[in-house]
Amino acid sequence: MTDPAAAVPALLVINAGSSSIKFKLYRVEGEDIALVLGGALDGIGRRPRFKVKDAAGETLADQSFAAEQVATTTVAQHLIGDWLLPRLQDYRMIGVGHRVVHGGPVYAGPVLIDDTVLQTLTGFIPLAPLHQLSNLDPIRVLRERRPDLPQVACFDTAFHRGHPELSERFALPRHFHDEGVRRYGFHGLSYEYVASALRHAEPRIARGRVVVAHLGSGASACALDDGRSIESTMGFTALDGLPMGTRSGALDPGVVLHLIEQKGLSAAEVGRLLYNESGLLGLSGLSNDMRELLASPLPEAGMAVDFFCLKVAQAIAALATTLGGIDGLVFTAGIGEHAPPVRARIVDRLAWLGMHLDAAANAADAAHIEVPGSAVPLLVVPTDEERMIGRHTLRLLSAASR
Amino acid sequence: MTDPAAAVPALLVINAGSSSIKFKLYRVEGEDIALVLGGALDGIGRRPRFKVKDAAGETLADQSFAAEQVATTTVAQHLIGDWLLPRLQDYRMIGVGHRVVHGGPVYAGPVLIDDTVLQTLTGFIPLAPLHQLSNLDPIRVLRERRPDLPQVACFDTAFHRGHPELSERFALPRHFHDEGVRRYGFHGLSYEYVASALRHAEPRIARGRVVVAHLGSGASACALDDGRSIESTMGFTALDGLPMGTRSGALDPGVVLHLIEQKGLSAAEVGRLLYNESGLLGLSGLSNDMRELLASPLPEAGMAVDFFCLKVAQAIAALATTLGGIDGLVFTAGIGEHAPPVRARIVDRLAWLGMHLDAAANAADAAHIEVPGSAVPLLVVPTDEERMIGRHTLRLLSAASR
Repeated sequence: MTDPAAAVPALLVINAGSSSIKFKLYRVEGEDIALVLGGALDGIGRRPRFKVKDAAGETLADQSFAAEQVATTTVAQHLIGDWLLPRLQDYRMIGVGHRVVHGGPVYAGPVLIDDTVLQTLTGFIPLAPLHQLSNLDPIRVLRERRPDLPQVACFDTAFHRGHPELSERFALPRHFHDEGVRRYGFHGLSYEYVASALRHAEPRIARGRVVVAHLGSGASACALDDGRSIESTMGFTALDGLPMGTRSGALDPGVVLHLIEQKGLSAAEVGRLLYNESGLLGLSGLSNDMRELLASPLPEAGMAVDFFCLKVAQAIAALATTLGGIDGLVFTAGIGEHAPPVRARIVDRLAWLGMHLDAAANAADAAHIEVPGSAVPLLVVPTDEERMIGRHTLRLLSAASR
Repeated sequence: MTDPAAAVPALLVINAGSSSIKFKLYRVEGEDIALVLGGALDGIGRRPRFKVKDAAGETLADQSFAAEQVATTTVAQHLIGDWLLPRLQDYRMIGVGHRVVHGGPVYAGPVLIDDTVLQTLTGFIPLAPLHQLSNLDPIRVLRERRPDLPQVACFDTAFHRGHPELSERFALPRHFHDEGVRRYGFHGLSYEYVASALRHAEPRIARGRVVVAHLGSGASACALDDGRSIESTMGFTALDGLPMGTRSGALDPGVVLHLIEQKGLSAAEVGRLLYNESGLLGLSGLSNDMRELLASPLPEAGMAVDFFCLKVAQAIAALATTLGGIDGLVFTAGIGEHAPPVRARIVDRLAWLGMHLDAAANAADAAHIEVPGSAVPLLVVPTDEERMIGRHTLRLLSAASR
């Protein structure tokens, strides 16, 4: 064991979902952070697999389990803890940053977790029942196993808390808004990272009106004005807006009522339908995975991809309307960064706005994918939510220790 | 009583809702129709009032009732029948046309009503429980009172039945689509009338890509390509899309689930909330009437109007994306025809698309309201759903009698 005083300062980032737990360990280097290692335990309860790589991509651990060996997130947490906590002894750990999906109407930035904060965040579970519980669980476990470590919650909603009133409201009676039924928006840590990366790489574009399309298995789009979020396609829940891998996206509320009143489904059954069986999977009847759909010769697969691309293009035009124009379009996240045919079809739908793709640059996932004559710059900016959480955690703990 | 053989041919149009019944009597003049008289019984069960005017605007009847005197649509139908049926004896009545909200996946045009058709239309009641029953009721009454009169059903959905697949689908498992859970679209009789009026007045624009904003107490927008409907903001029900007088418009489906699962509302209570207490009324907490909101100095009123205008502008940009461009924007229906400040705020949001309003023309509700430099023509086209129903009825009955 190294001398603690001499040891390198470091922090841990945890991004815990209902079927996977991701973690990254960062060294602190002045005011920024550098990746040491990153891993995940995926497929909890189905095909659990634990993998860790270092910053150079070398595999440090790779182990598969039978479903019943890692049947719950609790088991997964302890399994990760048993591997990870001894390795943290080589570092002077300054704290742990967590992704927490919902900061409610309260938190517009990251927050140091204490009993009161944890209680407040627990109160937001009804706002995101599927995600919030999974996010808070490892916080509780770490408070028991390492009570000395400060923990920070970083919210998917916080970046959107400066939205103008029109972007936050539903056309419902006013008391619902006051009670918290608002368009919160999500993927905020991704948008915040992309905004900061854009400010660094393309300061002129970043100062303008930019739409960012975060297209992954979850998908949304966000209107940025000078780097600040103005509107998002996701609303009160992460169901709203764009169609996703298995989520419906925006849906006539009359359909929900019809399924309950006329078809006899329970609200819980409708919830499972809209969260787990809809989106690309429902449309195609084949897969929730964009790569599989793009590779399929079946017309249902092509239709699902076209549907997705049309809705994304429509959302970009709608968000540009909120901004009063568009000075740049950014693609990010799994599909946004790595699916040239999807980007091509989306931009093709937006040719009427003067957006024109360079086919070779697009095929290469280049940083700029527009032709010189394109009225609007088109960019690919890889996102990094864990790095954003790490930076927030460092900043907040540095400020707290001063 | 006139000699039936010599009498002028005429037809009746009935537009029956849940709280009002409108009717118009048209003379047949060759292949078109001319208004003889039009009336309505409004405020059924609340403040019933029966008014009829002739084509010149002269009042033929104007009578108010106590709420309990005309408490139901059945009473209202017989009251209208008692006034109207004797007056029809001066004409050779060729038939009656009805507005019927839902033609389901079946009807892509008007249809002559017989037992089978009536049974099919009754089967669509679950698709539009509030409206369909009110529409079918007078058909049944007239079949009893005047079994000699052919009756024609004209559908709010029919004009949209040529929609491409992407405009008809939700991102739900495919069997729901096959079972009829589709984006039907409504206000089709209005769009069809506007498309025909535009073809007459502005043939060059009508051949292009046009977005029509039907803004009344119900509101939707429609993308027209060469006069054919390509997409509408209304979906499976008339709740979807734009916010309306008392309807929410598009709403995160997660909100519906939240109100049921967390707040303990029944689906019926959520339905009443979203149909009757939301939209401009819910947002403002003041009124569902755009005129009252525009006249109010209260910030809540201004916010509700701004919200409405932003959502309409976003929908226009989204529909233009489906069309791949926009060659004309048309405003119609109560608000669209008569609320210059609403048109001004919507077009202001679309200045980035090269739309620019002529303030004086706009204030005068002129046919053209754009400045000469506007990249997109902006028009006001008064709609006339009853005339469209009348024309359909004449055409179908003429064909049937040949």
